[in-house]
Amino acid sequence: MANSDLKEPIDVAEYLFKRLHQVGIRSIHGVPGDYNLVALDYIPKTGLRWVGNVNELNAGYAADGYARIKGMSAIVTTFGVGELSAVNALAGAYSEYVPIVHIVGYPSTISQRNGMLLHHTLGNGDFTVFEKISSNISCAMAMVNDANSAASLIDHAVKECWLKSRPVYISLPTDMVQKKVEGARLKEPLDLSFPANEEEKEDYVVSVVLKYLKEAKNPVVLVDACAIRHRALDETHAFIKKSGLPVFVTPMGKGAIDETLPNYGGVYAGDGSNKGVSERVQASDLVLSIGAIKSDFNTAGFTYRVSQLNTIDFHSYMVKVKYSEYSGVRMNGVLKKVTEQLGTLSPEMGSYTPNNDIPSKESSSTDPTITQAWFWPRLGQFLEKSDIVITETGTSNFGIWETRFPKDVQAISQVLWGSIGYATGSCQGAALAAKELGIKRTILFTGDGSFQLTAQELSTMLRNDLNPIIFVICNDGYTIERYIHGWEASYNDVQTWKYKDLPKAFGARDEQIRTYAVKTKEEVEKLFGDKDFKDQESKCLRFVELYMDKEDAPAALKLTAEASAKNNAKLE
Amino acid sequence: MANSDLKEPIDVAEYLFKRLHQVGIRSIHGVPGDYNLVALDYIPKTGLRWVGNVNELNAGYAADGYARIKGMSAIVTTFGVGELSAVNALAGAYSEYVPIVHIVGYPSTISQRNGMLLHHTLGNGDFTVFEKISSNISCAMAMVNDANSAASLIDHAVKECWLKSRPVYISLPTDMVQKKVEGARLKEPLDLSFPANEEEKEDYVVSVVLKYLKEAKNPVVLVDACAIRHRALDETHAFIKKSGLPVFVTPMGKGAIDETLPNYGGVYAGDGSNKGVSERVQASDLVLSIGAIKSDFNTAGFTYRVSQLNTIDFHSYMVKVKYSEYSGVRMNGVLKKVTEQLGTLSPEMGSYTPNNDIPSKESSSTDPTITQAWFWPRLGQFLEKSDIVITETGTSNFGIWETRFPKDVQAISQVLWGSIGYATGSCQGAALAAKELGIKRTILFTGDGSFQLTAQELSTMLRNDLNPIIFVICNDGYTIERYIHGWEASYNDVQTWKYKDLPKAFGARDEQIRTYAVKTKEEVEKLFGDKDFKDQESKCLRFVELYMDKEDAPAALKLTAEASAKNNAKLE
Ligand SMILES: Cc1ncc(C[n+]2csc(CCOP(=O)(O)OP(=O)(O)O)c2C)c(N)n1
Ligand SMILES: Cc1ncc(C[n+]2csc(CCOP(=O)(O)OP(=O)(O)O)c2C)c(N)n1
Ligand SMILES: [Mg+2]
Ligand SMILES: [Mg+2]
Repeated sequence: MANSDLKEPIDVAEYLFKRLHQVGIRSIHGVPGDYNLVALDYIPKTGLRWVGNVNELNAGYAADGYARIKGMSAIVTTFGVGELSAVNALAGAYSEYVPIVHIVGYPSTISQRNGMLLHHTLGNGDFTVFEKISSNISCAMAMVNDANSAASLIDHAVKECWLKSRPVYISLPTDMVQKKVEGARLKEPLDLSFPANEEEKEDYVVSVVLKYLKEAKNPVVLVDACAIRHRALDETHAFIKKSGLPVFVTPMGKGAIDETLPNYGGVYAGDGSNKGVSERVQASDLVLSIGAIKSDFNTAGFTYRVSQLNTIDFHSYMVKVKYSEYSGVRMNGVLKKVTEQLGTLSPEMGSYTPNNDIPSKESSSTDPTITQAWFWPRLGQFLEKSDIVITETGTSNFGIWETRFPKDVQAISQVLWGSIGYATGSCQGAALAAKELGIKRTILFTGDGSFQLTAQELSTMLRNDLNPIIFVICNDGYTIERYIHGWEASYNDVQTWKYKDLPKAFGARDEQIRTYAVKTKEEVEKLFGDKDFKDQESKCLRFVELYMDKEDAPAALKLTAEASAKNNAKLE
Repeated sequence: MANSDLKEPIDVAEYLFKRLHQVGIRSIHGVPGDYNLVALDYIPKTGLRWVGNVNELNAGYAADGYARIKGMSAIVTTFGVGELSAVNALAGAYSEYVPIVHIVGYPSTISQRNGMLLHHTLGNGDFTVFEKISSNISCAMAMVNDANSAASLIDHAVKECWLKSRPVYISLPTDMVQKKVEGARLKEPLDLSFPANEEEKEDYVVSVVLKYLKEAKNPVVLVDACAIRHRALDETHAFIKKSGLPVFVTPMGKGAIDETLPNYGGVYAGDGSNKGVSERVQASDLVLSIGAIKSDFNTAGFTYRVSQLNTIDFHSYMVKVKYSEYSGVRMNGVLKKVTEQLGTLSPEMGSYTPNNDIPSKESSSTDPTITQAWFWPRLGQFLEKSDIVITETGTSNFGIWETRFPKDVQAISQVLWGSIGYATGSCQGAALAAKELGIKRTILFTGDGSFQLTAQELSTMLRNDLNPIIFVICNDGYTIERYIHGWEASYNDVQTWKYKDLPKAFGARDEQIRTYAVKTKEEVEKLFGDKDFKDQESKCLRFVELYMDKEDAPAALKLTAEASAKNNAKLE
């Protein structure tokens, strides 16, 4: 199309960023590079904020955290060096269904065609290698090499990102940034609604579900990650409120459900569950499983003990009733109709009610040491409505199973992908998203080992005036790994840092930061009671060294680690 | 093969690490993960040291630096999360011909066959995705899934790594680690000699080269990266010493040649060269170009001005005389014979002799500010024999063109791949290799922007008691990028850190560290004169904040940046 044929000519970069604004993105993560610099000029012009991360892996993690809170995010990197640094973060987002638009500044299409020997190439004239790499971890690829197709490629990618809830890859060569496309398209926002299920099929599935539900004696609901990630929480909440059925979450589903509901029953993760929970779930003759991902760390080492014969699975791509598969039927529509047509049920609760009581063994102990068993329920008492809680692969993401959340608490944890360092990066993005949404507190728990991978993301938080509460669990290294193998091995040790000196070294102004170190239960009590520390209105980043024993771990971690070690060692 | 058929049964992991020891590796870089823990137990047993990096990208960079000094290196990561974090570092090594053995701890072959939903997977049962990704940046893949082929796969990979001088990928599933293989194979070290050239063809090429050399009036030699990376420095040195021809290096070839030789002529990079250099090289009627990589940043933006009609190219895979290609003929053998058969030449030197004189404009100035034009030759006076000098993409890797090196100085810089943060990681590996070899000083120059990407690698240096000298050029952000685009743009700013507070925060003991900040030429003079600072026997890591102006850059950088900006903006 000639420029003169365009009704409202607009530059490709402006078009792209305006689309991102339309879907709710307000901040763009990433790192500059000479192949993306000109595109970055469009960010403030389109009402967006440039975050300016310290490196691309952290930027990717941050974009992941931001997307989990805001619904979607974007990251800009530069060709080769930048994009490949972020690959692990985007693979994590692919694995855990987090929608991130990855925009890569490419050399000009002319340079590409001429196979120029440019910096950031493999030196072989092949400009398709990095695209190939990312295609493994993207649900759509938009190679923008031509102004005529640019707008529709961008629209397709952004839409796929939202609907499939996975990363997409958009290349933006330097000579495309300012090419003109049709701006009039922007008047029509992208249609982000899920395609409706085929009606007759959906109705059939609904009737089957209702039939089994009616017949069941003691059904329960189990909510897992994909209920969150595939945007089925409204339908899920409507169903559990109307049905009154006991509802449990998996570790990856933690935070999906209002845990103050009377029918909330706790965390189910096979043998890793509280006994009252596993008894109730495993005694059920019908488990309505919403958005399940039955991975090892989500099931305490594959100890999930619910028969498929007693299960109805709700997924984004299928509903499965016992062994009958209804492919292509998305859970959202089905759950909605099931709720509408639901008769009265007589739910049967379990004997156990989740709480934040300190286990008696802990409360009666006179040892001042902060134990994992004591800390996590105690944290539950500290948390407040709408907090965002981020935990890291290690003791914290198992410990959090023992914390009952107040209403509207959102939890972030990368249980399936499990890349350490993730939580700190994610915290930056989540805290920024929280700020945009008026959410007051973002609280991070990470390990001393994990923190070391991405510690400098603190700098980005400070640069963007974010005020999360950060706990680094100081327990002399990789405790979770010790439980798997190498109890005393030096490879499970880490260099001992002066963690709380870091914010200042990263340029925190005095009024931006409070630091703490707590080594006893009493000090935790004092900290949690400290008005300045817990203040919803605090403008400070609060950084806590939380000391626990090297040998201490949540019970569920011990069990899962043992199962992992066994599985690793298994021979034929 | 049944275990009982093995003469000297040995565990796969032990076999692998013993092979690495045989090729000269003494330290293994990497980060633990549950899929590699058992393998790590073999490292001390086989006489190797575990470095224990803070994260995998840094580990990859460090392995790169180590390999450049020691000849080869190895890194161990864990499946998915670990290996993908290192992808950018390994792509850099692929691009710049650095031999790194990448060992990835895989889930057991049983779990893989069963498609188990394990942590660190994409959740789709596909265990081949990461292998596919790495195959793009590896010169050999050894997927060790069977004890029978394990030893030969490992041998093949290690050999390819050395010969092709590029990364190889070795998978090590948890159930393979302790499988038995034939240990007797280890008695025969791997044959790492380059296959000889076909004799008749080689002799022919030699005669052609000699003929043109004899005819030429004023030949020169130009040494580039691949002379180093493909292990042709001995042949190159023999040739330039015997021939006495003027010899120049490219930016990527910096450090290849003894710069104290009387026939050393300086750095040639097209219009980015000192005028005396470009005049001499471009006036030559025969340029013997050894190991060329004519990338944009290696030629000051493609301003390399030597006609192919006046060129003989020596490569690892070909010799090219003017336009006649002799494929499959490796430079090493040809250079050796040419040197042997060389008659007497009457070399014609240029008018210019490289030196470390401060330009008169600088030496006459009374401004105390440290300028780029002043600093780099001044550094040349400070350097000592055998120093290792590492520079980063930014002002430093252009500035170093102006430094004439003492004898045996080795230089490291990622000019082609150009990933920032590389230099700090690489410094850890290089400093460790230096320690193993008895080299006294490793000196790093990085930018304030670049340092932020991988700063925590300082921790690994401290943990391993390394004592490099580190300069962070503090110039308020991404100066090199400002010269390309966005002179005042905030995306080219970085958070201002208290850089020299970091070593302490990363756990440096008092006696391990000295920190400095220099803001004037006088302070640099004092520092360079400080016995404690420059001491070859110092046990301390020395960390310097080196302040320069935001707008100041080496002349060659300005030229290259301008060319990049133009190339980026070019439209058809
Ligand atoms: C990127 C990456 N590298 C390595 C691992 C392997 N790994 C999993 S947990 C862990 C140790 C975490 O230690 P820490 O954060 O201190 O946790 P805690 O002590 O609380 O268990 C490691 C190294 C990983 N999951 N991700
Ligand atoms: C991993 C990676 N991300 C981004 C870039 C793009 N880039 C190249 S140089 C540079 C700025 C370097 O700034 P600094 O280290 O401060 O150097 P100086 O100020 O000395 O030029 C950036 C962001 C890159 N080369 N590599
Ligand atoms: Mg720890
Ligand atoms: Mg700088």
